[in-house]
Amino acid sequence: MINYPNGKKPVEQEKQKHSAINHSNRGMQLESDINASIEYYMERGIAVITKRPTPINVVKVDYTRGARIIDAYFEKQSTTDYNGVYKGRYIDFEAKSTLSKTSFPLHNITMHQIIHLQRVHAQGGITFFVIAFEKLSKVYLLDGQFVIDFYLNGDRKSIPLALIKENATEICQGFMPRLQLIEAINEVYFHEKIPESIK
Amino acid sequence: MINYPNGKKPVEQEKQKHSAINHSNRGMQLESDINASIEYYMERGIAVITKRPTPINVVKVDYTRGARIIDAYFEKQSTTDYNGVYKGRYIDFEAKSTLSKTSFPLHNITMHQIIHLQRVHAQGGITFFVIAFEKLSKVYLLDGQFVIDFYLNGDRKSIPLALIKENATEICQGFMPRLQLIEAINEVYFHEKIPESIK
Repeated sequence: MINYPNGKKPVEQEKQKHSAINHSNRGMQLESDINASIEYYMERGIAVITKRPTPINVVKVDYTRGARIIDAYFEKQSTTDYNGVYKGRYIDFEAKSTLSKTSFPLHNITMHQIIHLQRVHAQGGITFFVIAFEKLSKVYLLDGQFVIDFYLNGDRKSIPLALIKENATEICQGFMPRLQLIEAINEVYFHEKIPESIK
Repeated sequence: MINYPNGKKPVEQEKQKHSAINHSNRGMQLESDINASIEYYMERGIAVITKRPTPINVVKVDYTRGARIIDAYFEKQSTTDYNGVYKGRYIDFEAKSTLSKTSFPLHNITMHQIIHLQRVHAQGGITFFVIAFEKLSKVYLLDGQFVIDFYLNGDRKSIPLALIKENATEICQGFMPRLQLIEAINEVYFHEKIPESIK
């Protein structure tokens, strides 16, 4: 509960409320699962991964009421949602979920994010996407370079599931942690099976 | 201008406005200098360091006007303001400025931040504070572990300037980049003088 003293990120609560009345706001379940998982790893000293706060464009502040924001709106994240450090390596990833059963649509990945991932890659950082196929109850870790190449060179607007299955690693799901993210990172980037520290 | 399509982070514009009428909001100059410097390094492919958006606690959203936030307030950052990757290493730092000419007060560093820095350190990340003595026009890079030790074990509520001068590295100031942050990081953590890529 280090990150948010009241146990939950307020912006997320607000978004969840939004989600209840507007089904276009998908991915809240994935985000909440990832948040619980990174908290699990953080508390056990396994990895330090944090979610970047949702950027908010503040239009008007009422200073007579102690800097109360009275007009603002949510902005798109121009980098990625998550970053941190694991075994000395820099980790940077974006989480996306889709209702499709056959492919992962690229339309909500921005060029800003692709450029960010390329820059991180050039600095020797680890980048990937966590992709949840909601209807299939499957979550995958797909390397950032694969997505970058597909995004920049592919003719298609989505990555077929078959291609993801071939190139990605499935992130196992459980109770604690909800998503076995570090186990997947270990397998892909450190060529290790489940580390002792987690067992 | 990758991070903020309109060239400036809106929250910062708002804070600057705030700063104009309320001098308690110090550190905006330091923040703006660091932001310009990390942008400089990012555009040249030297390092990828980003500022975490200011966390905002959203209280009320008006969905009849396209998810317009109508009540919210600024929150304290529970981690640090900046993180990123340089030469494969994870970098995490906090920027603070003071009007004092003799010491760096610790009262606005939270225990949450200390715990965060300890965790990053345990994962092999690089942590430090960028400390600006406004009245002296001096900016220092002070290693995170030094601050953690002083914070947890010291009896004093501030770090004397003499001790900072002994243990920190001065961050040179110039025009482009405004603060030669990477040069200082190189010297302290990579034991290298100004890298060729920057020259």
